[in-house]
Amino acid sequence: MPTDPSVDRGLASPVSIGAADAVGDAVLLDALVAAEVALTRAWATVGVAPADAAERISVALGWRGAGHPAHGHGVGVDDVAEAAVGGGNPVIPLVSRLRGCVDEADRAWVHRGATSQDIVDSALMLLARRAGERTVVELGGVEAALATLARDHRDLVVAARTLGQHAVPTTMGMRAATWLVAVRRARRRLAAVLEQLPAQLGGAAGTLAALVEHARASDAADPARTALALVDAFAAELALAAPELPWHTTRWPVTELGDALVQAIDALGVLAGDVALLARTEVGEVAESAPGGSSAMPQKRNPVGAVLVRSAALRAPQLAATLHTASALAVDERPDGAWHAEWSTLRELLRLALGAASTARALADGLVVDPAAAARTLSLTGGLLVAERLGIVLAPLLGADRATALLGRAADAAELERLLRAEPAVAGLDLDALLDPAAYTGATSALVDRALEEDDR
Amino acid sequence: MPTDPSVDRGLASPVSIGAADAVGDAVLLDALVAAEVALTRAWATVGVAPADAAERISVALGWRGAGHPAHGHGVGVDDVAEAAVGGGNPVIPLVSRLRGCVDEADRAWVHRGATSQDIVDSALMLLARRAGERTVVELGGVEAALATLARDHRDLVVAARTLGQHAVPTTMGMRAATWLVAVRRARRRLAAVLEQLPAQLGGAAGTLAALVEHARASDAADPARTALALVDAFAAELALAAPELPWHTTRWPVTELGDALVQAIDALGVLAGDVALLARTEVGEVAESAPGGSSAMPQKRNPVGAVLVRSAALRAPQLAATLHTASALAVDERPDGAWHAEWSTLRELLRLALGAASTARALADGLVVDPAAAARTLSLTGGLLVAERLGIVLAPLLGADRATALLGRAADAAELERLLRAEPAVAGLDLDALLDPAAYTGATSALVDRALEEDDR
Amino acid sequence: MPTDPSVDRGLASPVSIGAADAVGDAVLLDALVAAEVALTRAWATVGVAPADAAERISVALGWRGAGHPAHGHGVGVDDVAEAAVGGGNPVIPLVSRLRGCVDEADRAWVHRGATSQDIVDSALMLLARRAGERTVVELGGVEAALATLARDHRDLVVAARTLGQHAVPTTMGMRAATWLVAVRRARRRLAAVLEQLPAQLGGAAGTLAALVEHARASDAADPARTALALVDAFAAELALAAPELPWHTTRWPVTELGDALVQAIDALGVLAGDVALLARTEVGEVAESAPGGSSAMPQKRNPVGAVLVRSAALRAPQLAATLHTASALAVDERPDGAWHAEWSTLRELLRLALGAASTARALADGLVVDPAAAARTLSLTGGLLVAERLGIVLAPLLGADRATALLGRAADAAELERLLRAEPAVAGLDLDALLDPAAYTGATSALVDRALEEDDR
Amino acid sequence: MPTDPSVDRGLASPVSIGAADAVGDAVLLDALVAAEVALTRAWATVGVAPADAAERISVALGWRGAGHPAHGHGVGVDDVAEAAVGGGNPVIPLVSRLRGCVDEADRAWVHRGATSQDIVDSALMLLARRAGERTVVELGGVEAALATLARDHRDLVVAARTLGQHAVPTTMGMRAATWLVAVRRARRRLAAVLEQLPAQLGGAAGTLAALVEHARASDAADPARTALALVDAFAAELALAAPELPWHTTRWPVTELGDALVQAIDALGVLAGDVALLARTEVGEVAESAPGGSSAMPQKRNPVGAVLVRSAALRAPQLAATLHTASALAVDERPDGAWHAEWSTLRELLRLALGAASTARALADGLVVDPAAAARTLSLTGGLLVAERLGIVLAPLLGADRATALLGRAADAAELERLLRAEPAVAGLDLDALLDPAAYTGATSALVDRALEEDDR
Repeated sequence: MPTDPSVDRGLASPVSIGAADAVGDAVLLDALVAAEVALTRAWATVGVAPADAAERISVALGWRGAGHPAHGHGVGVDDVAEAAVGGGNPVIPLVSRLRGCVDEADRAWVHRGATSQDIVDSALMLLARRAGERTVVELGGVEAALATLARDHRDLVVAARTLGQHAVPTTMGMRAATWLVAVRRARRRLAAVLEQLPAQLGGAAGTLAALVEHARASDAADPARTALALVDAFAAELALAAPELPWHTTRWPVTELGDALVQAIDALGVLAGDVALLARTEVGEVAESAPGGSSAMPQKRNPVGAVLVRSAALRAPQLAATLHTASALAVDERPDGAWHAEWSTLRELLRLALGAASTARALADGLVVDPAAAARTLSLTGGLLVAERLGIVLAPLLGADRATALLGRAADAAELERLLRAEPAVAGLDLDALLDPAAYTGATSALVDRALEEDDR
Repeated sequence: MPTDPSVDRGLASPVSIGAADAVGDAVLLDALVAAEVALTRAWATVGVAPADAAERISVALGWRGAGHPAHGHGVGVDDVAEAAVGGGNPVIPLVSRLRGCVDEADRAWVHRGATSQDIVDSALMLLARRAGERTVVELGGVEAALATLARDHRDLVVAARTLGQHAVPTTMGMRAATWLVAVRRARRRLAAVLEQLPAQLGGAAGTLAALVEHARASDAADPARTALALVDAFAAELALAAPELPWHTTRWPVTELGDALVQAIDALGVLAGDVALLARTEVGEVAESAPGGSSAMPQKRNPVGAVLVRSAALRAPQLAATLHTASALAVDERPDGAWHAEWSTLRELLRLALGAASTARALADGLVVDPAAAARTLSLTGGLLVAERLGIVLAPLLGADRATALLGRAADAAELERLLRAEPAVAGLDLDALLDPAAYTGATSALVDRALEEDDR
Repeated sequence: MPTDPSVDRGLASPVSIGAADAVGDAVLLDALVAAEVALTRAWATVGVAPADAAERISVALGWRGAGHPAHGHGVGVDDVAEAAVGGGNPVIPLVSRLRGCVDEADRAWVHRGATSQDIVDSALMLLARRAGERTVVELGGVEAALATLARDHRDLVVAARTLGQHAVPTTMGMRAATWLVAVRRARRRLAAVLEQLPAQLGGAAGTLAALVEHARASDAADPARTALALVDAFAAELALAAPELPWHTTRWPVTELGDALVQAIDALGVLAGDVALLARTEVGEVAESAPGGSSAMPQKRNPVGAVLVRSAALRAPQLAATLHTASALAVDERPDGAWHAEWSTLRELLRLALGAASTARALADGLVVDPAAAARTLSLTGGLLVAERLGIVLAPLLGADRATALLGRAADAAELERLLRAEPAVAGLDLDALLDPAAYTGATSALVDRALEEDDR
Repeated sequence: MPTDPSVDRGLASPVSIGAADAVGDAVLLDALVAAEVALTRAWATVGVAPADAAERISVALGWRGAGHPAHGHGVGVDDVAEAAVGGGNPVIPLVSRLRGCVDEADRAWVHRGATSQDIVDSALMLLARRAGERTVVELGGVEAALATLARDHRDLVVAARTLGQHAVPTTMGMRAATWLVAVRRARRRLAAVLEQLPAQLGGAAGTLAALVEHARASDAADPARTALALVDAFAAELALAAPELPWHTTRWPVTELGDALVQAIDALGVLAGDVALLARTEVGEVAESAPGGSSAMPQKRNPVGAVLVRSAALRAPQLAATLHTASALAVDERPDGAWHAEWSTLRELLRLALGAASTARALADGLVVDPAAAARTLSLTGGLLVAERLGIVLAPLLGADRATALLGRAADAAELERLLRAEPAVAGLDLDALLDPAAYTGATSALVDRALEEDDR
């Protein structure tokens, strides 16, 4: 048990507890260290820093390039977190601690030419990329499970509901295909955004002036060009995209990421909302494989996965709105508060997206469809479920107005059938076939196939 | 003066009053009518409806295909709006009125096989596409003005501010280039989203069942294939993208649009925020060409354009959040309230984006830069503005710690110069050159050129 | 049909179309005029303006004091709305037009000493008070209907659902009482907030300087005291509260109002959400008296009132968030965009609250409870619905662990009863009584009575 | 250094790091334990549980009543947090662990009759009350500092700015008084809300059925009355308000708290925004006593306190919006996701409010006013700053139109004075007195005094 009361482990956020390791403080600290080391390595790449100095710093701070975790730097989260208050961000105290970890001769290369925002932004992008990639994998898992559902229940006829009321028949396959295309689009968009997340390196005010000055001091032939090359090398070290311009105040990398994360959570929210509705006691068409229990009510089978994913879906849009508000207020050459509002917000959104995707994957993987329940609800309103079809078929026989009137008069299925059988003009029709919901599922099979084919690409 | 108290003309939203004609009720009504006519024309295209019936309906309802405005349908906004309450949306009363406008023999083709959501969603996409395209044009105008600013003031040295404090020098060109790249990215994203806005046609519950049934009734060889072709034909009529699947509950078309609109407003918000700060009485580096006055304070030159754009930027993120919340709650086969929450919200966002873009364009077009004011603010802290550079240059001469200490000791520019001149190790340096802010603008010229080149593509 | 495409009548917001007359542009314009007239009347009250000048202005501009509508001023909404862009708000052009409506000798009294924000803020508070009072009345109507429901169905036993699953029995009365207390609290809070809405009168920068100067010019004995008295007189004219200090940048009057409106909509949203769930085809415990139909599906009984109220509930929180964001950014002596972001947002929130309250009142007034459906759903899981009770009763007889195990083993009601009857220790119990859900409704009757008693106060 | 990557210490949220101990997971866990113990104590109070059992449980679980911290229960945060996923909330695993901590004979009294939501809601209210009370204290500290500022600089004349432009004179005292009244109102509202935060105890579905049943099992004379008394006793144990009805789905306790917290942060945001503007390099009227530095720019004096408070103000409104959204969606007898969305959101809001209040208190306590800078900015536009006054004074002499024209013609202060001195009608005026900004501060002194008097109450 942590004795320190300030620790936050996710006790109040079960949906994302499994995602905590992706964006926790220690991970962020490692990413900050990685960004600092990447900078020294980039200085060596462009020929300004000695290669052996960069190598010594890499070893001392425990990071060896993209794809490697940072470890062994020995700097403490608590220590940096508390010292961050004085300057408003964690990089200022971090740099002094990191300089203390390296040879005195190499100290000047640590953080050379950078501003705090260069390091924080790059570290957050690194963190985002990694957490985002895990989210992409989980979303892919959701898709695989939904594709299986769509295939397995492609033609299982169920009642479609609109505004909460039975409308016409549809299929379980169509439901799953609809969930699938939304998750897939969101996953592709997220993956595309992750590819474009840029490193940040602009120096004090986005002019690269200190970078140019250091290049000049080392007799670079074209200091400005060296500085621009340094930015690219820095991005390459972190396996992030090279920025077009410093983006200290143009925050699309943050908001496009936020938008894509929310879109993914939205898609999962629809799946979860539908599962919660379909699992209701009166419906029971689906159930979670591992429902939650209740200490007092032993009969409860709570759709806990759906409930938790829904809780994420209710929170995410407002977090993205905060990122946009901060983006719109990013004034001057580096902003006075708007930037600081992004850090926790983006991390919480990353945490929610990964947590919701993992939870939804388990939910989708284990979703149990109950064909008997589906048949029961499908038959609840009898022929009324195909009233639309009857209207189409009867209109030429009775006239549209009389057909509508007849259908509107039927209070229930029995009366509907009685009215139909009493109608001479209907005598020639095969009423049983006409009233069969399975014969009125439209183009669902073709649409499911289309969704699944796209999946195979 | 409207005597009807319920009319809303934008009295309380000056930023978007010029955009009101893009998304007003009459425009929405015309779009609804266009969607209905497009459906009948699509039925003819796939060979189910007689071509002459579609033509007669086109004439009667006053819409002749994408690119043409709808007019002459004679249906009243007030009438439909009030009747919309009963069924929860305006299409139900609209259809009965439109049927009254066409020949009795053609009535059955109006709204054939569609559900209200097909028509509302398609009409909103049509509206969005048109308003969005106007917004794209205005954003392009903002870019052109900012590119001119960047070119004209590429090397005008100004003070860069971070956290509200003078930091190092930058250039007016760099500022303009930074604004430019953000607006450009937002405009390109918006344009890409507009290209993908899909028509909606799924029938009562997204199964296309009524469409298939009508195709079957007209002896189509493959009724499901005919229904799918109808969807494509319908989209083509409206010059919208063909949907992969019906998207009654997968609302990415709405949220991706919302996200792109907010990104554009964010970018304009940064421009406006900077203009408001740079136009402050103490700064005066820029001014609007048509500042607002005050009845009581004749000296006031209010940056009204910037103020209005900022007001839009403070509102837009929450509107997009509502679209995401609605998207995440779009359950069943058609949702019970979430869908209804989108309509006003999306229109207000379209209105704000177009209004903010137009206002920002006028702002950018007329932005007056005052080089004298820039020179005055640039010199406010004298050599302190290049303290970073001094640190870099002095470190090898004095050691990093002594250099930092010396610079930190200087309370103002005069003391800084005195301290420097008193330092023997500094004697060999050309202090005047070293203290010249124009010599410490880093890679700004190259970055501005990069931003402008990209613009020429 | 309006030929002007910019008119917005609420075609896309059915929930609030009935509320449009409360906050439309013409109403806002009238309120602005009322505020201007109130100012001249207040000048007369404190003895600075001649009483007959104030009277002539009242007549010319058509407003005679609180409680009277403004009419006859002859100023056009369109004209003012378009001219508002130049100065960023509608008051600047309004004042010049109003001056044109009064005798030349009286012109100087129009807008004397005020700033635009004084007039806009006061007019919005006036508008808010009136729309808010109508909302309070509608909420009271909702409460009356819910109290009747609670009384009529006080002991109608129904299944309680938690996380969407049947849990234990409750009563329809308890449901209605729960809805009732939430609406009542929200209504009381809203009424209290309305009482405190202040007038705004601070002059150009909240110092009352122009007011003091005008008082001095008319030889007031203590000009500052006269100016303070003027503020009180102005508030009294408008029947608004007198402000403690000018609140140009301290926006609690706007955010407290916004919070109260959202709280009311939240409470209605819960009612609407429950109605939508209870009206679902599989449940049917309640129905709206005037459900919405469908052109294609004659059997549909859509809970349109609930759907529309829910759509308002999904939008309101973000509107209130915008008001808070604007409040937090209200800098300087009068803000540069944050204030402007409030106008449309507050009006939309007022419109939604009144519309949602009216719609919910009709919904609650006409809510039809179906005891047969309630009995049917209540019996769906048989004895499992009282598993909690069985656990309590059986624990002393079997031990807690065995009791829980026995109950957990029962997959359905039949098996439960079989297991119970096979258990010797249970033999002495009256199983029928024990399994009767009506005997396990806890303290619901007392709680319903408590809620109703509070209502009688 | 925590080796566990999932730990979140606030590295990315410097504004609230000092508040982490108020709402961390260990604190929440303690509050959950306190709620469980309070329940057993309440059972004893109403005479159902043996007093000594309650006492033994109190000792075993380490909580002895309101005002005492819980400690010594030995349950681990990590353990409970991970187990929380299965059932969707932390109470289910917590109860089994707590039962393991007490005598076997006493186990049945742990969690007797309660549902998870009873415990989580009560614990969150307990947490909220404590964190809120600390926030109230910090806000009081802010007020004290602002009152001192208002007193000390009551008549220091400064330039008032509207829409970012110099408008008329005001005083530093008036600024401080304006900040003060906003913080004071927010603090009072928050304190009032804290008083009303209710305990939650409704049992499985808010009917108190299990409580009644246990009371009946112990032969209570009137089991329902005993259950109601138990609820009151439970609330008293926790020093929370007794609920009118169970509020599992009527979430005003959460949203009213959220609204009050945001109102407080809004008020602090205005203070911070003004400080950031007034501390800008060109203005310098105020400075923080402990500004933040920069590793690279030794001259930087960043207004870090203001920046951090602003970052909180940009985040808080959206958090409160999430609470409202969750409130509006709290359906059934206990909600399926909406409730779960509240937990982290409310805690983050509590953390931000306490952090922002502490940071603002330090900011206000140490705020340094620079009268010389104030004098400098005040004189920037010379007589133009009192143009409004000149208009009032000149109008009777020149006619209003000529006066306005003359004032509008003056491009700067020098020209204004020249124009004035050239005007014969003005000859009799004491121009120096008229142009003195100190003579045009309106009723600021009286308003400051009013604000301070209210403070003394």
